[in-house]
Amino acid sequence: MSASKTKPIRWGMVGGGRGSQIGYIHHSAALRDSTFELVAGAFDIDPERGRAFGVDLGLDEARSYPEYAAMFAAEAERPDGIEAVSVATPNNTHFAICKAALEHGLHVVCEKPLCFTVSEAQELKALSQARHKIVGVTYGYAGHQMIEQARAMVKNGDLGEIRIVNLQFAHGFHSAPVEDQNPSTRWRVDPTTAGPSYVLGDVGTHPLYISEVILPHLTIKRLMCARQSFVKSRAPLEDNAVTLMEYDNGAIATVWSSAVNAGSMHGQKVRIVGEKASIEWWDERPNQLSYEVQGEPARILERGMGYLYPEARIDDRIGGGHPEGLFEAWANLYRRFGFAINKEHGLAPDGIEGLAFPGIDAGLEGVRWVENCVRSADAGGVWVDYL
Amino acid sequence: MSASKTKPIRWGMVGGGRGSQIGYIHHSAALRDSTFELVAGAFDIDPERGRAFGVDLGLDEARSYPEYAAMFAAEAERPDGIEAVSVATPNNTHFAICKAALEHGLHVVCEKPLCFTVSEAQELKALSQARHKIVGVTYGYAGHQMIEQARAMVKNGDLGEIRIVNLQFAHGFHSAPVEDQNPSTRWRVDPTTAGPSYVLGDVGTHPLYISEVILPHLTIKRLMCARQSFVKSRAPLEDNAVTLMEYDNGAIATVWSSAVNAGSMHGQKVRIVGEKASIEWWDERPNQLSYEVQGEPARILERGMGYLYPEARIDDRIGGGHPEGLFEAWANLYRRFGFAINKEHGLAPDGIEGLAFPGIDAGLEGVRWVENCVRSADAGGVWVDYL
Amino acid sequence: MSASKTKPIRWGMVGGGRGSQIGYIHHSAALRDSTFELVAGAFDIDPERGRAFGVDLGLDEARSYPEYAAMFAAEAERPDGIEAVSVATPNNTHFAICKAALEHGLHVVCEKPLCFTVSEAQELKALSQARHKIVGVTYGYAGHQMIEQARAMVKNGDLGEIRIVNLQFAHGFHSAPVEDQNPSTRWRVDPTTAGPSYVLGDVGTHPLYISEVILPHLTIKRLMCARQSFVKSRAPLEDNAVTLMEYDNGAIATVWSSAVNAGSMHGQKVRIVGEKASIEWWDERPNQLSYEVQGEPARILERGMGYLYPEARIDDRIGGGHPEGLFEAWANLYRRFGFAINKEHGLAPDGIEGLAFPGIDAGLEGVRWVENCVRSADAGGVWVDYL
Amino acid sequence: MSASKTKPIRWGMVGGGRGSQIGYIHHSAALRDSTFELVAGAFDIDPERGRAFGVDLGLDEARSYPEYAAMFAAEAERPDGIEAVSVATPNNTHFAICKAALEHGLHVVCEKPLCFTVSEAQELKALSQARHKIVGVTYGYAGHQMIEQARAMVKNGDLGEIRIVNLQFAHGFHSAPVEDQNPSTRWRVDPTTAGPSYVLGDVGTHPLYISEVILPHLTIKRLMCARQSFVKSRAPLEDNAVTLMEYDNGAIATVWSSAVNAGSMHGQKVRIVGEKASIEWWDERPNQLSYEVQGEPARILERGMGYLYPEARIDDRIGGGHPEGLFEAWANLYRRFGFAINKEHGLAPDGIEGLAFPGIDAGLEGVRWVENCVRSADAGGVWVDYL
Ligand SMILES: NC(=O)c1ccc[n+]([C@@H]2O[C@H](COP(=O)([O-])OP(=O)(O)OC[C@H]3O[C@@H](n4cnc5c(N)ncnc54)[C@H](O)[C@@H]3O)[C@@H](O)[C@H]2O)c1
Ligand SMILES: NC(=O)c1ccc[n+]([C@@H]2O[C@H](COP(=O)([O-])OP(=O)(O)OC[C@H]3O[C@@H](n4cnc5c(N)ncnc54)[C@H](O)[C@@H]3O)[C@@H](O)[C@H]2O)c1
Ligand SMILES: NC(=O)c1ccc[n+]([C@@H]2O[C@H](COP(=O)([O-])OP(=O)(O)OC[C@H]3O[C@@H](n4cnc5c(N)ncnc54)[C@H](O)[C@@H]3O)[C@@H](O)[C@H]2O)c1
Ligand SMILES: NC(=O)c1ccc[n+]([C@@H]2O[C@H](COP(=O)([O-])OP(=O)(O)OC[C@H]3O[C@@H](n4cnc5c(N)ncnc54)[C@H](O)[C@@H]3O)[C@@H](O)[C@H]2O)c1
Repeated sequence: MSASKTKPIRWGMVGGGRGSQIGYIHHSAALRDSTFELVAGAFDIDPERGRAFGVDLGLDEARSYPEYAAMFAAEAERPDGIEAVSVATPNNTHFAICKAALEHGLHVVCEKPLCFTVSEAQELKALSQARHKIVGVTYGYAGHQMIEQARAMVKNGDLGEIRIVNLQFAHGFHSAPVEDQNPSTRWRVDPTTAGPSYVLGDVGTHPLYISEVILPHLTIKRLMCARQSFVKSRAPLEDNAVTLMEYDNGAIATVWSSAVNAGSMHGQKVRIVGEKASIEWWDERPNQLSYEVQGEPARILERGMGYLYPEARIDDRIGGGHPEGLFEAWANLYRRFGFAINKEHGLAPDGIEGLAFPGIDAGLEGVRWVENCVRSADAGGVWVDYL
Repeated sequence: MSASKTKPIRWGMVGGGRGSQIGYIHHSAALRDSTFELVAGAFDIDPERGRAFGVDLGLDEARSYPEYAAMFAAEAERPDGIEAVSVATPNNTHFAICKAALEHGLHVVCEKPLCFTVSEAQELKALSQARHKIVGVTYGYAGHQMIEQARAMVKNGDLGEIRIVNLQFAHGFHSAPVEDQNPSTRWRVDPTTAGPSYVLGDVGTHPLYISEVILPHLTIKRLMCARQSFVKSRAPLEDNAVTLMEYDNGAIATVWSSAVNAGSMHGQKVRIVGEKASIEWWDERPNQLSYEVQGEPARILERGMGYLYPEARIDDRIGGGHPEGLFEAWANLYRRFGFAINKEHGLAPDGIEGLAFPGIDAGLEGVRWVENCVRSADAGGVWVDYL
Repeated sequence: MSASKTKPIRWGMVGGGRGSQIGYIHHSAALRDSTFELVAGAFDIDPERGRAFGVDLGLDEARSYPEYAAMFAAEAERPDGIEAVSVATPNNTHFAICKAALEHGLHVVCEKPLCFTVSEAQELKALSQARHKIVGVTYGYAGHQMIEQARAMVKNGDLGEIRIVNLQFAHGFHSAPVEDQNPSTRWRVDPTTAGPSYVLGDVGTHPLYISEVILPHLTIKRLMCARQSFVKSRAPLEDNAVTLMEYDNGAIATVWSSAVNAGSMHGQKVRIVGEKASIEWWDERPNQLSYEVQGEPARILERGMGYLYPEARIDDRIGGGHPEGLFEAWANLYRRFGFAINKEHGLAPDGIEGLAFPGIDAGLEGVRWVENCVRSADAGGVWVDYL
Repeated sequence: MSASKTKPIRWGMVGGGRGSQIGYIHHSAALRDSTFELVAGAFDIDPERGRAFGVDLGLDEARSYPEYAAMFAAEAERPDGIEAVSVATPNNTHFAICKAALEHGLHVVCEKPLCFTVSEAQELKALSQARHKIVGVTYGYAGHQMIEQARAMVKNGDLGEIRIVNLQFAHGFHSAPVEDQNPSTRWRVDPTTAGPSYVLGDVGTHPLYISEVILPHLTIKRLMCARQSFVKSRAPLEDNAVTLMEYDNGAIATVWSSAVNAGSMHGQKVRIVGEKASIEWWDERPNQLSYEVQGEPARILERGMGYLYPEARIDDRIGGGHPEGLFEAWANLYRRFGFAINKEHGLAPDGIEGLAFPGIDAGLEGVRWVENCVRSADAGGVWVDYL
């Protein structure tokens, strides 16, 4: 990876404060390779804790704001104000914060799920288009280089026509009602803060987005979904769900979303079966991709190697054999967000232009998928046309 | 494993002739440990080829019959005639051959699927009860020792209440229309010889039976099934199918049956998720069982070790560390068939009495499951009550 | 695998009685596929227990002998007397029993180590040649089909010139002084019964023989060995040893032999590194062979598949995907012993002639290797020329 | 991981310029979490290329120096001059650059091997002590959290007395003479630039240092080493080496160092065998540690989990299940370097004080080990007392 030549983008954060699950990886990824520069933040629902956290991160005290509206207003007044903001707060706040950010002329990187409904997502999309602002959504796993390899393989016909897609993100960390002790879990199982689903939106949308990256030519025609609340107090939100989908080309997909897959760590896996070969990827071994041609020995493809497609090598930082992890995947995405923003600003983005970029449409599709799943599940697990 | 003390049971075979897929493992397993003794056979649809094959196997030429009806009749006349017969012919012949065998007073070991319809299976069941004859069905993988371990673990509450059951048997050997060249595949994709399904019955019933062994206390309430013929000429028979099932306790199951999972070898896997822990077993590594307690490191249980439940050690032939394979699994089943037969004969079966035994009910349940899956699939993949 | 056409060879056993570690696999492997037929035995150091065991195995009571000398004498008198005998007793008895067997005109299958010294082995070799009798040695793992694949790959130049050979058989079952309770371990750590070494001979010779099979063109020039008795009461016998070897072509090898590799199951692994590629085999996953060409994705070769070399498919019983285990490996060796014997008898052995066959020279080489290792170790771990 | 409260340390780099193998990870790790701040550099042997690279990294042009001596001199004059420097140049320059840096009052982070001889290393050690400066050495893999877990397990007696240590770093990237095309390889196989060894120093010292971290209580008594130049033009430098070592407690170790292990990726593995249990770690799966208690199922310990020892959780950035990679390992080390420097400066280092820190002694021990190995190898692979 070569050093970037553009100036870092002035950037702020909403949420992701001390003790939050996902805050650290946002700034770690954004600052990596100096794509962004952290200059402001409203990190916490507790203003004082948020302010102190920002100062610890090295922020100017005045720019460690008590809440996001104040930040957007104040920064808009500054000549050196933020150009972009990331939103890493609980789900119920995403829509309002993103909307306010766009209205203040900011590019936005928002956590998934982008919002609660397709119509909200469409409103954000319209706004972003009107304002010529980028909206990125942090489907972070998609930044792994082997996902680009998978995409290139499908595109180049290495698998033949696609037949079967098996997706899962099924961990076990919430097998017991841990929400009683853990606030990061508590809001996830409450519809007012989490939205219409728990695991479908929280974990299922990750491999779903990866499937969109690898299989851009396929369209979901109909799906059915069964969801369960094995910890009963979580109802109506599900802690486990199985979704079946039919694509327009006749391919079939399953998606297993779970937080009660006891003893499993991440459990995010993607298997794509074509008429000639299959590929399989597992996010706990993200540097490998299994490539299985029918009638030949299975091959283990390794990140960083010369035999990969060029798209899969662009983000290489360290060569093959050295394991890269989730932080590099996120940093890759943030680089793509940065390049997209710089392009809007008329700067020449180079090199990584073709790489998968989870923008506003990826955010919208995730919300749409959850909406369809919930509609099916709440009707008793029936097939519904994909709307 | 201690040496057996009972005399070998006089035994014959129908089908499983030279070049057949599954014939070798039948006699290899039956003769292992001298449970059975091969004294007669009607091995082939081609009488002459069958006769020659029997002679090569060491049979008396006169008892290597041109066809099964002749065998049943002639053997019934002999004082040293066969007591039991195994049926390893294409599916469409099972019902007639089993029926004839029972009517001739023989114990039967039949290949799966036992027959085409539940009512046929019930007829065989009634006949076997009336004649006091054993009917065994060769769900061979269930003979692996780690399946007994899994069963004991569930029974002893190591997993807690069961929540999720993931079953699959999804190989890739028939990704292309190999039936054009291969007669063993050809009859499988033709409803007149294969019956109402291809992969559901051919492979899906294997992990289904394993789930019955491990989870005897669960009852399927309803299911839905989507089936596809990715090689179009196979329609109406499917080469891929996904089944969802709901159990009476609220648990959910998925079953993936496939012959077009390109590049996969066997692909038979069973994962059982409980509220406390999960277990996972893979038939290509049959000596291991993954045991994953939420919040603890995953454990790899190994066949033959002292820490297993006693049920899992009864069939140990060689101790831990030495891999046993499919032949031992089948030999274990044939030992159980033998003990069951000896018990009917008033001989004292010892030691292995509690071990899983795929009898007439297992055969019937497999046929019932296929029938329900097909009913759902043919109605468009809708939920159907399990009948 | 096709049915054999020759008559079973009349066969007896010495040792391998009830409760012995290795007795079961000998008769299971010999009887498999009717290569041999068990007609006599002297199974136990305890005459009465041995007699009862033979009867349980179905022997004529008169031919279940109290001790081997009586058996050899009596069988030699019978027109239907045994033609071959297997020896599965503790090490210190092998030489005398094999010698007596050969002198009685019997073919012999002997357990490793064949005897205690090279000069004893040479005496047995001379005797076997003089009498035109086969001596087979049960390096059982070498019967796995993937070992034939490895051999063919080296022969065909797939690896290029060989550079590095890493061998290990390092289990952990004797980490503690279990010999206090376990007679099968007790004799192994006593030089009067075990011979000049424990783990070198007991486990190390297994991968050593496999390396001889795969690399017939390499000759050991010199070696050095360090051995340890971590359980002190085992001294002078070692429970762990590391051997370094130099081959005539400049390649280097390491051999790790251990019974105190705590927590390891078998731990038998063979890695062969050539200038172009490496292969790696692990006896706990015997159906796979890793093939790693430098600069290409690693490939997992699977037993039973069409892409293997023909030599690797001869012994296939069940096709790819179905795991075969140690019992098939042993049965393959016994088939080769049987064919070799039949060939001596003027019968036409077909098909498997080129396959690796651990005969008298393999037995002798194992003894030689141990002798060299011990000579080095006892001189303080110095390099010694390979004699 | 909590946000740091100390100000970033002003930091420069020597070497690690555009296209270098290891430059990127140095600044990526140092800048991570704002432990350091890059303010100067002399990145390249080619002054102009180095200058341009520094500017691309965002440096003030004036502080992107043409060579290190100029940098040390100029920065020493500035009130905001660098406080610390990292050295990522070919081996032959380390001694001179480190010496000059220390003489200019800088803390140093140096690449391994620290220098060519023990006496050079001792000179650097004396200088660093006289100047009260930290010298860190980037044995980067040691920063993985599971290494701390391994260390804590040994310390807490989970393995019992240590018996066997198996170390390897054996990749295959230089199986062919790639140095003809690749300058990063070329200097490695030339003694004037690489020093007295190639793979011993280049890769073998990595797992050696890890063993020192995990087993601080063991002392090497004697060793022997055989080294080979499989690509002949590399002689006298080796591209493969096997080292045997005896510790003062009677334990035995092997170290396999290689660049010609064809088809292997990293191949860095550490296995520690105790009387009760073994642990095994592999740098390509750095988030896992296998823990194998004799007589119990093997356990897979996972990074980030609550059951680990506290030392293994201090550096957790993202929780269990999310894979961390080599960049986090290096960032952890750089944090420790930073805290050590801050401590010298009288600032209170907290939290991570007990964690393994590869300082001047680690650097010296690596050089000493290579010296002993070479002495043994050049004497024909004899045992030498460890000096
Ligand atoms: N992309 C991923 O892989 C991934 C992983 C985890 C979480 N997430 C998403 O990230 C978001 C945050 O999840 P989390 O697990 O970090 O939650 P969390 O509960 O651990 O942390 C939420 C943080 O947001 C702060 N916050 C809440 N409301 C705020 C407000 N109005 N203004 C400013 N700060 C506010 C809280 O103080 C806290 O610091 C969620 O939308 C979640 O779905 C994504
Ligand atoms: N349990 C398992 O794991 C497993 C695996 C494979 C096959 N099977 C089942 O075994 C049965 C046989 O399958 P296969 O793959 O071996 O088929 P195959 O086509 O390879 O062999 C069928 C054999 O039956 C013989 N045959 C056919 N009709 C006959 C008749 N009327 N009388 C005597 N012999 C006759 C044929 O000559 C041939 O030898 C099927 O029901 C199949 O579902 C089970
Ligand atoms: N090839 C392999 O993989 C393998 C594996 C295990 C053992 N072995 C070898 O097999 C041999 C036996 O080992 P084991 O572990 O089965 O030993 P064991 O102690 O478990 O059994 C030895 C058997 O030999 C019988 N015996 C002893 N002396 C006898 C005599 N004079 N006459 C008749 N029977 C006698 C004993 O009664 C007992 O049944 C050893 O040489 C050992 O090295 C080989
Ligand atoms: N810790 C590790 O895991 C690890 C991994 C790889 C390399 N290394 C070590 O890092 C060092 C560098 O190795 P590399 O593979 O990056 O080498 P490289 O040849 O790829 O790069 C060397 C860099 O140093 C620059 N350089 C050379 N002489 C210089 C000088 N006098 N002043 C300034 N810059 C100079 C070169 O221009 C080049 O940018 C070596 O000592 C090597 O052993 C360590």
